This record gives sequence, structure tokens and C-alpha cells, in this order.
Amino acid sequence: MVSSKDVAKLAGVSQSTVSRVLNTPEKVRTDKYDKVVKAMEELNYRPNAIARSLVKKQTKSIALISGPIHNPFFAETTTSIVNYCKSKGYNTNVHFEVFGDNSSIIKDVSEMQVDGIILSSILMDDKIYYDLKALNIPFVMFNRKHNEPGNYFEMDNILAGQQVTEHLLEINHQDIVWIGGPLNMSTFHGRYEGFRLSMKAHGLTVGTNNTFITDTSEQGIRDVVKDLMSKRHRPTAIFAATDSIAIFILDFLLEKGYRVPEDVSLIGIDNTKLSQHHSVQLTTVGTEQCINLGQVAIETLIDQIETGKFELTQKTYSTKLFNRSTTRAI
Amino acid sequence: MVSSKDVAKLAGVSQSTVSRVLNTPEKVRTDKYDKVVKAMEELNYRPNAIARSLVKKQTKSIALISGPIHNPFFAETTTSIVNYCKSKGYNTNVHFEVFGDNSSIIKDVSEMQVDGIILSSILMDDKIYYDLKALNIPFVMFNRKHNEPGNYFEMDNILAGQQVTEHLLEINHQDIVWIGGPLNMSTFHGRYEGFRLSMKAHGLTVGTNNTFITDTSEQGIRDVVKDLMSKRHRPTAIFAATDSIAIFILDFLLEKGYRVPEDVSLIGIDNTKLSQHHSVQLTTVGTEQCINLGQVAIETLIDQIETGKFELTQKTYSTKLFNRSTTRAI
Repeated sequence: MVSSKDVAKLAGVSQSTVSRVLNTPEKVRTDKYDKVVKAMEELNYRPNAIARSLVKKQTKSIALISGPIHNPFFAETTTSIVNYCKSKGYNTNVHFEVFGDNSSIIKDVSEMQVDGIILSSILMDDKIYYDLKALNIPFVMFNRKHNEPGNYFEMDNILAGQQVTEHLLEINHQDIVWIGGPLNMSTFHGRYEGFRLSMKAHGLTVGTNNTFITDTSEQGIRDVVKDLMSKRHRPTAIFAATDSIAIFILDFLLEKGYRVPEDVSLIGIDNTKLSQHHSVQLTTVGTEQCINLGQVAIETLIDQIETGKFELTQKTYSTKLFNRSTTRAI
Repeated sequence: MVSSKDVAKLAGVSQSTVSRVLNTPEKVRTDKYDKVVKAMEELNYRPNAIARSLVKKQTKSIALISGPIHNPFFAETTTSIVNYCKSKGYNTNVHFEVFGDNSSIIKDVSEMQVDGIILSSILMDDKIYYDLKALNIPFVMFNRKHNEPGNYFEMDNILAGQQVTEHLLEINHQDIVWIGGPLNMSTFHGRYEGFRLSMKAHGLTVGTNNTFITDTSEQGIRDVVKDLMSKRHRPTAIFAATDSIAIFILDFLLEKGYRVPEDVSLIGIDNTKLSQHHSVQLTTVGTEQCINLGQVAIETLIDQIETGKFELTQKTYSTKLFNRSTTRAI
């Protein structure tokens, strides 16, 4: 293993100069800097990131706590986040949420002492928010957010819920069911609120008969839809609170011989790439500018790490309907 | 910040006892152990993983170098790997391959000093193999492998290529084109070899007219298919070397108004979950027991890290046809 001592010897400088080249290169004279870099290249020297992190109090690592990547939304955000981090010289510790309680992940993350945290997986009243604050490093939330102030990047979930509902109402649906996840997640909370507001504006009510809260797992969703479709009075339209839920529902309905939208209309939210595939063509709602929420969030996080300026950044992006093939007028 | 000194004080033991509880708990007397753990819980003490890694020469981190997760195969393996690592107390540094040259990733990984490396992204003659060897930590390859010996977990790619080709030949196709990626990747190499062998056995040849090597990007694949379908003499069947490629092709064909399989048959390899979706129902080939290659590979890697026994483990899983809806007899 090549050490900084070997580099110093070959370059004809002191070991502390080598150290300064790694840590505060702007303070090193150009001729010395060039000699050191040349020696490093010649010896194929790899500075020990762990040792360096002890000196610089920087790990050049960030932690991502993401929703599951069978959900295409999170596959897309994870790709953006990992690749952006790499382009900026950061490693990404990836964790997938433990449904409903991510405290064990926060414990792991705090032990690893990362430079920043980006997470989609937080509840509105989550106690991990306070653990995150206590770590005293920058963190940003995307997709979901907490009730307490923090950096976040989200779509306008209430507007999205309204646009879905208005679309279904406009094409004459009234027997609409909402299938989503827990209402203490800000995405589901807002999307459900949008549903409630638009239904109410049309003199329709929401309640246990048309609201189905699942754990967002495939099995949980299949169970709900199976039950719904076995009823004498079936819904004419399903408002799936995410594309991922809609795609599970679509699979189940087609498997059981139902036609979409002839037998039932189906609409999601997120406008994922998979919803655009021509064998799916899911009608959905997404941000107007097709923003990758993971991308904008990681750019802010890295910027805060590098500048040391922890300015509160909160963005709520406007949404619109992407009218494809899974809904029809009745 | 709570230190081990604070823990020692509250527990009424020496600092070295606290250290032994963290590192060699089996050597600590039960009463002392209990006192220390109780004090840690009371103080919400978080041992510094970085400092501990310097002592134990363990980082409790592994690095994953994965193919892109827009490919559902890699979304599935990444999920398994990250979640298995977490269950074993390891963090996962995730990197997505840089098409054709992952040496910058290997440099990052070696600086982070992980305990092991799991990768799908290696070429058969890749020079990074030697960099990996030089790190002197366990590494396993899944999906793809190198020409030199190492731990790997793969499907029988030649058999898979033969099964795809035999299926198409049996239903009377002869104008078959192969669309894949670079042949210095062992997956594409084997799958193409299977194609060649089966075609030859039926007196048919393979060459530039029915072999299309792409960079596996969506645009690269669309360009090839666009060109193919604009020809007077079109293929009757497309052998896509991965499900991911097949799903890009399906999107393009449906977008342009072609029917699958009426206008052209299409078959993939990998038997991903997405290929099973009832709006896709892609005919494909996969491992007989539906093995998650990432899962079996990470289990071996963690086992090698924990036992310190670096025994060569090489698995080639047999494959079979999953006959769905995208091919038809002509």
C-alpha cells in the first residue's frame, strides 16, 4: 500500500504538504502542488477516505432513505440521486424504508456519520424528524414532508388530488373509490384532501364506503380490489393515489379478465415513465414541468453541504393531468 | 455529543470496558455488560462507526456496482441486496455503472474501504478485475462475470439463448433478429452464442443482417428497431437479449402502431416481474427456480466477510421458457 510518506519522498516535499494538497489545495504553492499530484499519479496513490474524514470532518457520503424501487417513482429518483452524488464526488448509502418505522435506519445513518441525508420516507408527525435535527447535518425531504419546517420538494398533492377527481367527475363518474396509503404520509394526506374537496364541491361525500387505506404492498392492494370487484355495486372509477398502486391494480384487473377502461376507469398520480409505456398508457397527474423531485432535492442538499449555508428551501410544484388511455366517459 | 467516557462514568466501569462491550462483548462479564448497555441506552449513546472501523478494520459497508435500475432486473436485485445488507447490519454504497468503463467507481470504492464488493457491471476482459483483486477484499459478481476465476452467480446464458431461439424456430420463424448489448459482456456473449448455435443447428446463419449490438439505451434500441421496421424485408421475430431491451422495443412498436405479436413476435430474457404484468405479458426465458441472482450473491459475500473464508463460489443456474403473449406461430 502506497502511503502519503512515499508520495512526499518522491515529490521531495514534507508529509504535511501532501496533506495540505488533499485538504486545502488552494493554500499550496503551484510548483509544490504540481509535484505532489505528479507523484500521486506515478505511485497510483489512493488517499484513505476514512482517515481523511477524521481530519476534515467530512465523509463525502450522503444517505438516501428511499421508498421501495418496485415503485417506478423511486427507481427514477434513486437513479438521479446516486448519479448526481457520484458526479459531485459523493458516495450514496442507500436504504429502503421499513414501512411505518425508519428509526433503525436513522440509527445506522447516524453511526456512519454522513455529510447529509435525503429522504422520501417520513411521516407528517414522525419522531425521526427530531433525530434528524439532532444530528446537526443538512437533510432534505422529497415527495413526502414533515409537519415541522424543513427543506422539502414536493408536488402540490392537494391540487393533484383535485385534478384527478375533477377529471373523473367531468367524464360523468360518481362512484369513485380512492385507494392509497396511510394518511399520516403527506402525499396521501394531500391527495386524499384533494379528492374530498372536489367530491364535496360536487355534492358528493367521501367516507368508509369509498376510501381504502392500504399498506401500499401489492398483496394489500390486490385484497382491496378483489373485495371491491366482488360487490354487487361496483365503482365505475378507481383513483389510485400513486402510479405504483395503479399499476398493481391494473395487473390484478387484467389478470381477472376485467377490461380497463371499459369495465372500470383507472387513474394514478406521479406520471412515472412506466405510466407512459405504450402497453400501459396510464392516465395520471404529475408535475407540470415533469420535475424529478429527487434531482432537485439532491442538488440542494449537496449545495448546502458544500457551502455550509443551511437555508430553508421549500418547493411545491404545480401539477397537471396527463390524459392517456385508462379512463373513459360513461 | 455523548462519549464513551460518559457511558463509562454512568455505568461505573472503565472506558476500556465500554470499548470491549462494543468490540468483544463475549469477553465481558454479564453484570458489567448489562450496566454498560443500560448506560448507553440511558444516554442515547451512538458509537462512532468511523472510529470503530479504524480499530476493527471493518467498515460494515459494502459497495454495490449495479446496472441501471430502469432495467427492472437491476431494480429487483438492488432491492434484495440493500435489504439483505441492512438485515445483517451493513450499509450499502450504491453505484450505477458508467457504460463501458467503471474504473472511476472502483477508485471511489477503494477509497471508501468497504468490507466487500458486489457487482453486476464487469466486462469479460475488464481491467477493473485486477483492481478488484488488488483491494484484497471479497468480491462477487452476479449476472455478468469475468474471464478470470472469481465468485459469480449467473444464469446459463448459452442455454437461455438456445431456448429463446428454439422457441421461435418451433413456431416457424426464420427471419429472426438478435438485439442486444456488447459481446464483451458475458450475458450478451452467452445469449448470442446460444442464438448462433440454435440457428446453425437448423441450417440458418447469423451475421450482420440479423445481429444488432446496441449500447442498451432506450434511444440506441429505438434507432435499431426504427431502421429494421422501415425495411422492405422485415423480421418476423425479435430476440431481445434482455427483458429491459424487449420492453423498450415493445413501447416503440406499439407507439408506431405495430401489433405484437400479430405484426412481429418479441421475446426477452430475465423473466423480470415487469414481464409478468398483465398489460405486458412478455414471453421470456429465466432461471428455472426464479432465482434472484443479487440475493444469492449478497448472501455469499456477507458470509465470506463474516467468516473470513474466501472460498470460490461459482453458480450457473439452469433456465426455462416462460411462454406468454408476445410470440405467435406463423
